[in-house]
Amino acid sequence: MTDAVIDLNADLGEGFGRWSLTDDEALLSVVTSANVACGFHAGDPGTMRRVCALAAERGVTIGAHVSYRDLAGFGRRAMDVPADELAHEVAYQIGALAVFAKAAGARVGYVKPHGALYNRVAVDDEQATAVVDGILLAGGDVPVLGLPGSRLHAAVEKAGLAAVGEAFADRAYAADGTLVPRSHPEAVVKDPSAVVRRSLRLARDGEVTASDGTRVRLRARSLCLHGDTPGAAELARTVRTELVAAGVRLQSFV
Amino acid sequence: MTDAVIDLNADLGEGFGRWSLTDDEALLSVVTSANVACGFHAGDPGTMRRVCALAAERGVTIGAHVSYRDLAGFGRRAMDVPADELAHEVAYQIGALAVFAKAAGARVGYVKPHGALYNRVAVDDEQATAVVDGILLAGGDVPVLGLPGSRLHAAVEKAGLAAVGEAFADRAYAADGTLVPRSHPEAVVKDPSAVVRRSLRLARDGEVTASDGTRVRLRARSLCLHGDTPGAAELARTVRTELVAAGVRLQSFV
Amino acid sequence: MTDAVIDLNADLGEGFGRWSLTDDEALLSVVTSANVACGFHAGDPGTMRRVCALAAERGVTIGAHVSYRDLAGFGRRAMDVPADELAHEVAYQIGALAVFAKAAGARVGYVKPHGALYNRVAVDDEQATAVVDGILLAGGDVPVLGLPGSRLHAAVEKAGLAAVGEAFADRAYAADGTLVPRSHPEAVVKDPSAVVRRSLRLARDGEVTASDGTRVRLRARSLCLHGDTPGAAELARTVRTELVAAGVRLQSFV
Amino acid sequence: MTDAVIDLNADLGEGFGRWSLTDDEALLSVVTSANVACGFHAGDPGTMRRVCALAAERGVTIGAHVSYRDLAGFGRRAMDVPADELAHEVAYQIGALAVFAKAAGARVGYVKPHGALYNRVAVDDEQATAVVDGILLAGGDVPVLGLPGSRLHAAVEKAGLAAVGEAFADRAYAADGTLVPRSHPEAVVKDPSAVVRRSLRLARDGEVTASDGTRVRLRARSLCLHGDTPGAAELARTVRTELVAAGVRLQSFV
Repeated sequence: MTDAVIDLNADLGEGFGRWSLTDDEALLSVVTSANVACGFHAGDPGTMRRVCALAAERGVTIGAHVSYRDLAGFGRRAMDVPADELAHEVAYQIGALAVFAKAAGARVGYVKPHGALYNRVAVDDEQATAVVDGILLAGGDVPVLGLPGSRLHAAVEKAGLAAVGEAFADRAYAADGTLVPRSHPEAVVKDPSAVVRRSLRLARDGEVTASDGTRVRLRARSLCLHGDTPGAAELARTVRTELVAAGVRLQSFV
Repeated sequence: MTDAVIDLNADLGEGFGRWSLTDDEALLSVVTSANVACGFHAGDPGTMRRVCALAAERGVTIGAHVSYRDLAGFGRRAMDVPADELAHEVAYQIGALAVFAKAAGARVGYVKPHGALYNRVAVDDEQATAVVDGILLAGGDVPVLGLPGSRLHAAVEKAGLAAVGEAFADRAYAADGTLVPRSHPEAVVKDPSAVVRRSLRLARDGEVTASDGTRVRLRARSLCLHGDTPGAAELARTVRTELVAAGVRLQSFV
Repeated sequence: MTDAVIDLNADLGEGFGRWSLTDDEALLSVVTSANVACGFHAGDPGTMRRVCALAAERGVTIGAHVSYRDLAGFGRRAMDVPADELAHEVAYQIGALAVFAKAAGARVGYVKPHGALYNRVAVDDEQATAVVDGILLAGGDVPVLGLPGSRLHAAVEKAGLAAVGEAFADRAYAADGTLVPRSHPEAVVKDPSAVVRRSLRLARDGEVTASDGTRVRLRARSLCLHGDTPGAAELARTVRTELVAAGVRLQSFV
Repeated sequence: MTDAVIDLNADLGEGFGRWSLTDDEALLSVVTSANVACGFHAGDPGTMRRVCALAAERGVTIGAHVSYRDLAGFGRRAMDVPADELAHEVAYQIGALAVFAKAAGARVGYVKPHGALYNRVAVDDEQATAVVDGILLAGGDVPVLGLPGSRLHAAVEKAGLAAVGEAFADRAYAADGTLVPRSHPEAVVKDPSAVVRRSLRLARDGEVTASDGTRVRLRARSLCLHGDTPGAAELARTVRTELVAAGVRLQSFV
């Protein structure tokens, strides 16, 4: 047996108007935390409302998945946004989502940066601080989900907020615990059974085997599941089933 | 002497990024209610924050100036938005503004539709109801500023919210109390002294002379001052000064 | 045998950035005319380029699928755009698409309004004329694809351009040759074999059975195939195969 | 006397819908080349048309002022746009502008990157090449206006296009001929008479005094005049008048 506890998070509500991407309905029966797009990289108001309502109904914690303002690039193009502008844009997104969370009887339980902003604030102090300023501006004493050891988490802790680390069972790690860049051919673990195996080990033992064979310890309270590729929802469900079968308790960090 | 009380409202924060339109600083020393753009027709997050901070500092009530999603048309192009989409879009805007109002120690005190949406909900029951649904969705038990006798106000009252009527001292009225359409050559009163005179009469006696000479009674708790034309801020200031000199008490309706 | 000639057109390139909708590759091996989204309701520059390149390669005529500026509503929300603005917006879209058509060794061979604009210009003289003005402004002596008998086609002919009528094999028609509105439960013909049968009759005999059983003649030089629903590309292929088997010649109207 | 020839260029059409920024009318009677916004950082279709019509009427060369897609940031926020996307976005903008240039009886005579893209392609080979690819994709054998010695100009020359250098009379230069960054307190020359003096020297002698007193030679065929600050149009006019009085011939480089 194990007394391991883990949160499962996924990006949801990544449609916009006529377009959809994520199988929100399926994923909301798997995850314990939902990173909900707030309109800047995806997420029209109607989708935000539906996802919040479903999440609340199923006891899934709602998180604001804040992004650069970049619908055309899906928030995947890093931008040199001045710090004050970035803080204001983050606060705006949290506020908009809060309305739909509250309407569903819930609240915005955490914040997680999306895409290029996620990568940027892992290494950029100024933008990391701006994101935290935006969260504070939005009145939020909420945890911030991100990469363990990131500059974001340093800024989060400096501001007295809770920094929650996440790991990726389908991504290769270097020996120093950083992610192997997506440009690398073996950056993504594609074998579903390997993903399940790595999920179990991350959840129970807090460790993963790096691409050079080293054993790496990761302080991850949450596992990030991907939902925007074919078969993703199914794999997510399998991970959940196996975790539960192994006695791991699934529980939001909020 | 008079025991007349009136609110002065104006559209503010109508810039977007590099562009500005309204002299927010000047108008915020004149009005008692600020209709703040929420990002759909104008109003970037930075501007929203600044206007909310200034308004709170001066005791001006903050209102959400909600609009169709139409930056290119400044919200002046009527749109056939399905009712549920419109409700969600309205709620989204209110939520985004609420963050900046709260950060300034205030709150969103009322809602007023902007531009083409204002005109549409004056006559369109479905969209009027959608706007009210959006306000309710945003949790708002707040008054709704609009045209007296409008379908919007009917929907507002049906929902148990407060309907606050406004009048325009610089617009010509027909004998039935409706506004003379802007397409009409004499739709706008351009003589500043006439605007001041009409403001005083509206505030003290609740009436105006229609374009055919008829005396028209208007249930207006607020006067709308325009701020986006040359000399507008100055005229607004004169109206305020004259109202105060005439013993009219200036006070928000919230 | 028959000497019938018909064009097959479909809406293509309806993705935007991360999102896709239409199976452009599959449909481009079926149709003879491609209505390519130009960025206002869908269609990022990269998608526009790819669709133009593929279309040119396969000898498919490229058409500009012009729309209201409404990504959030996919161009399906009617807008009261002033005539001059609408003309400028139409010209802008045609110009942007022309670059990618030319880069592929082709050109913009025709124009077709999309979504709410399509429906509006069927009945609204002012907007119909504005669309034609936009086409002329873009230098285009090109045919305009639309509803036979529409106000758009009246304006097109008045301007001396060619009006090309299209029919919908999967839509129910009223006895007067107009489409049964989508709000009607039987507006859409869902049985694939019925769609194929109606396509054949439209192509060979220029007629369709209206929902009240009347025989209706339609002057349609093109059939519009839908590509954004599950199974759509397959059905489109079947229609093409059956038309060819019946001796109907498939040929663009350009 | 002098046989000096210089081009004067300015950014124009920098409004969007309800907002305006540049005094296009005034500047078009001063400059010989107009950098026209194409809709990505500014520039709605109506403005593009008006500016092109006025420019053509006055014999001013029309240039495509291409930008990152960033209305909210006015194209001033650097973006990590993948090379192919950037090329497509550049081509899209040139195509859209070409329609209005042609409608005015002119054509797009050159291309100049705007704002953050201008700065980025001065030093970034990949984005510089992408911009050139976009120009080639748009069919353009046109000169490219930019910073002398920039990576953009290296890429332009490699592609066999003409690289045209420009100088800024109101910006301080370092001894190596690069611009003093805007973050520096003395980056901008604010004294109008100094700007006029520097303009004359740049036009006649091709040199400027750097901030450390060094004499710097600049290969600039064009002077960039700023038009978006108070008094800018007036200063631009004075520069023109003084250049003409000094016998400098004003002529577009196209």
